[in-house]
Amino acid sequence: MLQACPLRLKPTVARWREAMSQSVLREVLALADREGVLSFAIGLPAGEFFPAAELGAAATRLLHADRRALQYGVPSFPLKQQIVELMALRGVSCRPEEIFLTTGAQQGMDLLSRLLVERGSPVILERVVYDGMQMAVKKLAPEILTVPTDPATGIDVDAVEEILEAGADHAFLYLITDGHNPLGVSVSREKRVQLADLARRHHLPIIEDDAYGFLFFEETAPPVRALDAEWILYLGSFSKILAPALRAGWVVVPEPLTAILSALKHSVDLDTPSFTHHVISEYLRSGALSEHLAVVRCEYRRRRDVLCAALSRQLADIARWSQPAGGMFLWLELPSSIDTAAGIATAIERFQVAFSPGRAFSVTGDDHARSCIRLAFANLAPDEIEEGVDRLARYVRWALH
Amino acid sequence: MLQACPLRLKPTVARWREAMSQSVLREVLALADREGVLSFAIGLPAGEFFPAAELGAAATRLLHADRRALQYGVPSFPLKQQIVELMALRGVSCRPEEIFLTTGAQQGMDLLSRLLVERGSPVILERVVYDGMQMAVKKLAPEILTVPTDPATGIDVDAVEEILEAGADHAFLYLITDGHNPLGVSVSREKRVQLADLARRHHLPIIEDDAYGFLFFEETAPPVRALDAEWILYLGSFSKILAPALRAGWVVVPEPLTAILSALKHSVDLDTPSFTHHVISEYLRSGALSEHLAVVRCEYRRRRDVLCAALSRQLADIARWSQPAGGMFLWLELPSSIDTAAGIATAIERFQVAFSPGRAFSVTGDDHARSCIRLAFANLAPDEIEEGVDRLARYVRWALH
Repeated sequence: MLQACPLRLKPTVARWREAMSQSVLREVLALADREGVLSFAIGLPAGEFFPAAELGAAATRLLHADRRALQYGVPSFPLKQQIVELMALRGVSCRPEEIFLTTGAQQGMDLLSRLLVERGSPVILERVVYDGMQMAVKKLAPEILTVPTDPATGIDVDAVEEILEAGADHAFLYLITDGHNPLGVSVSREKRVQLADLARRHHLPIIEDDAYGFLFFEETAPPVRALDAEWILYLGSFSKILAPALRAGWVVVPEPLTAILSALKHSVDLDTPSFTHHVISEYLRSGALSEHLAVVRCEYRRRRDVLCAALSRQLADIARWSQPAGGMFLWLELPSSIDTAAGIATAIERFQVAFSPGRAFSVTGDDHARSCIRLAFANLAPDEIEEGVDRLARYVRWALH
Repeated sequence: MLQACPLRLKPTVARWREAMSQSVLREVLALADREGVLSFAIGLPAGEFFPAAELGAAATRLLHADRRALQYGVPSFPLKQQIVELMALRGVSCRPEEIFLTTGAQQGMDLLSRLLVERGSPVILERVVYDGMQMAVKKLAPEILTVPTDPATGIDVDAVEEILEAGADHAFLYLITDGHNPLGVSVSREKRVQLADLARRHHLPIIEDDAYGFLFFEETAPPVRALDAEWILYLGSFSKILAPALRAGWVVVPEPLTAILSALKHSVDLDTPSFTHHVISEYLRSGALSEHLAVVRCEYRRRRDVLCAALSRQLADIARWSQPAGGMFLWLELPSSIDTAAGIATAIERFQVAFSPGRAFSVTGDDHARSCIRLAFANLAPDEIEEGVDRLARYVRWALH
């Protein structure tokens, strides 16, 4: 297609095209949307629980009360205060002045990466980690060091320590403490303590992505940010607990960083999406979130249970997985002879089931993850999950023979 | 403040802090908001015309009809089709496949700059130009070449040609064809033809910012994009014609570029703000925009006329300006002994009037612009404009003595 465009002559356009064309996940997205396909592929929250009527009512109330919700404006201070209250529910104590509102958590990743990455300071990532963070980081072309990670226990903290002990300055470590994307794991309290300690001792900024932290099914420890307010840069999001299309996230950082982030954001998209932020604030004022969250947690836990039970029935002999303590994802390890990225097209076309190939989340693209898949279970009804696992098992057995 | 933050130890944080702390305009913003101050400082559209009730009704209708407006999703195709119709009103013919939706026009500037800037390919800017574009470009640290510009006639196209004739590859030229920010000028049809011709002959991408194009008071020629669909990358925005807080803009580019922009945007903020985009689409479906635009144009023209008449009465002997044919801004040239950036604090505190110092828009910061000011006239009622010019004249005469 680019052949038809004179801008192809610009080498920078060609390079971007190359750099951006490698997302396996984006191709899956296009395929998985077909009629009749049961899709575990995309990390969609369950649409049927979105409080649509309440958000509509909040928008109407807001626009009747004050046209200023539609004007350029400073980020909503009431929303920051409400986020402070939400953070307290996560066991994190902070002030509104430490909250910086973003256009979704992804923008937090992008801005913090741009703030912290520089030549000669490697970024530390788990070998398998959220592809959106990889995109945010890789376009800045830093050196990347990887550490092992595991669906049962999460990041290998000893490996992080080894890297840090070897010296050098590191840009940051990126971490999903609860409901890891794609592994589903929530790390132990001990690891959280160790990580906070490493951050302080080695002056290592840790970007802690807590997008799934409110979706817990069992008690887990508070985020690492609860243990250290200086080196832990926390990312939060309304996408998974309210609705993604509102594009509302936040970071919790030391107050002096907010002014720099604000100037950087100004150059990127000028203003906060204040209308939707005001709508969220109005919705939160009604007090409906805690009940909404209780319903979502209960339903997601049920879906996880249905998924794990179906996997036990169908794939216990050849696959391995760990039961997630929260979030929306389960990581399935298949026999090493299966290349799931190569097989996804067949799975969709022949077996009418979609998933994300593990390779989409692998930082180097050439490891163990190639025989794994990520199952996003939040947006399928329990009977769809059972039917989906049935189809998946048939795909797996086909792929083995 | 940063002294209190351990992250100060990171040299990259210190550099960002330095790079981002120089916006004169941001300091003005903080001061100009005081009770009793009449502010020409910020480019706010007139809030009293925002169709708040209609947008609220659109949001409610939308959320009753379909919860999917709250889910992650592909950019709204109906909105792209509606933008194609809007573009036809600007004399531009294009297809929905050439439209790329952005989180406001500023994001278009950021993404296109990142796509096109590379080492050794200078960016060409007018000497005085929108500070937000300067921020988007300067953080990429390219070489910048400037060309003269003028509040009566706009960009010096001969100077652009001279630069291009001298050879070398250029990243792009940035241009505001109508209602220039901050100069207020709309360039002649002849210059538009020359610019399209230069772009084609020299393979020069031109980013044409048409954020104010729908706010014309007199007939002007169509944008340069109407003359060339290959090299002209068009930026549009709903911020000035509907409401800024909806964060909705678009670019019109050759179709092959949209996939690259999409991947790049994915890494930056993941998704379009689909909720507000769906709300806008629903609002546009009602057909109310054309009447809304007619009202806004009529009112802004009246405010321009009141402003020009007041300036003629008060400052004709010592200041110069040109009457804008559209948009929200007028550029006032004061006697060269006045440094308006140095004087803004006094203007606000002693004379209760605020404006943007010319230096905020000067690419090099050290030219003729230092004795100029930008007056944003859209968000003041006619009697406030008269009173504001009265105060401004008193400040100017004070500054001269």
